[in-house]
Amino acid sequence: MSSATLPSDIADRLKRDENGLVAAIIQQHDTDEVLMLGWMDDEALARTLTEGRVTFWSRSRAEYWRKGDTSGHEQHVRSVAIDCDGDALLVRVEQIGAACHTGNRTCFFTDLSVTEPSVTEPSA
Amino acid sequence: MSSATLPSDIADRLKRDENGLVAAIIQQHDTDEVLMLGWMDDEALARTLTEGRVTFWSRSRAEYWRKGDTSGHEQHVRSVAIDCDGDALLVRVEQIGAACHTGNRTCFFTDLSVTEPSVTEPSA
Repeated sequence: MSSATLPSDIADRLKRDENGLVAAIIQQHDTDEVLMLGWMDDEALARTLTEGRVTFWSRSRAEYWRKGDTSGHEQHVRSVAIDCDGDALLVRVEQIGAACHTGNRTCFFTDLSVTEPSVTEPSA
Repeated sequence: MSSATLPSDIADRLKRDENGLVAAIIQQHDTDEVLMLGWMDDEALARTLTEGRVTFWSRSRAEYWRKGDTSGHEQHVRSVAIDCDGDALLVRVEQIGAACHTGNRTCFFTDLSVTEPSVTEPSA
């Protein structure tokens, strides 16, 4: 893959964690479905902003990976937004096929049980 | 605030970072708008699953905070899903007012410039 450099005005906005990463939420651009969450360092974001495809940094494999290169399930970038404090990105994409390596459309296919308190707490 | 304990079957699913945290994406349940991203440890997730309101762990202040306690902009939990590898949560909420401390509805109000390559790269 090519290397890419992040413009300094964007790099200055990023609030990276101890490993130099920010969280990247991937959302289907037309249905607004949240598909997955990945991690980006400066170069992964620079590639994502210029290559038309989403590149992540894999924390477990310690390498760059471009979604779809092995699976064919490419993510084509439509827009990228950064949040107010610079530690998260919202990447809107056209997702080809399943976003999840399990074959599910989204990685968030497991619901946890939510129990409401029986008495409503007063608002602050 | 109350303390809460996470059920072991959920605790076993979590893949926490070095600080014991997972990322929590907050999405408006009916419009599917992505509002913000916060961080949760086991207790913040336990509270979120049982109190009907979203509780985060603040990395900068190193304390729990329940969205809306000072701003009135409460997040009422509708569902919580965990992703396939356990390091991210998708929390669908009814957001009262603005999710962002800036007063914006969403924290992702700053778009970054995306430039497409002039030649389409071949698929893998």
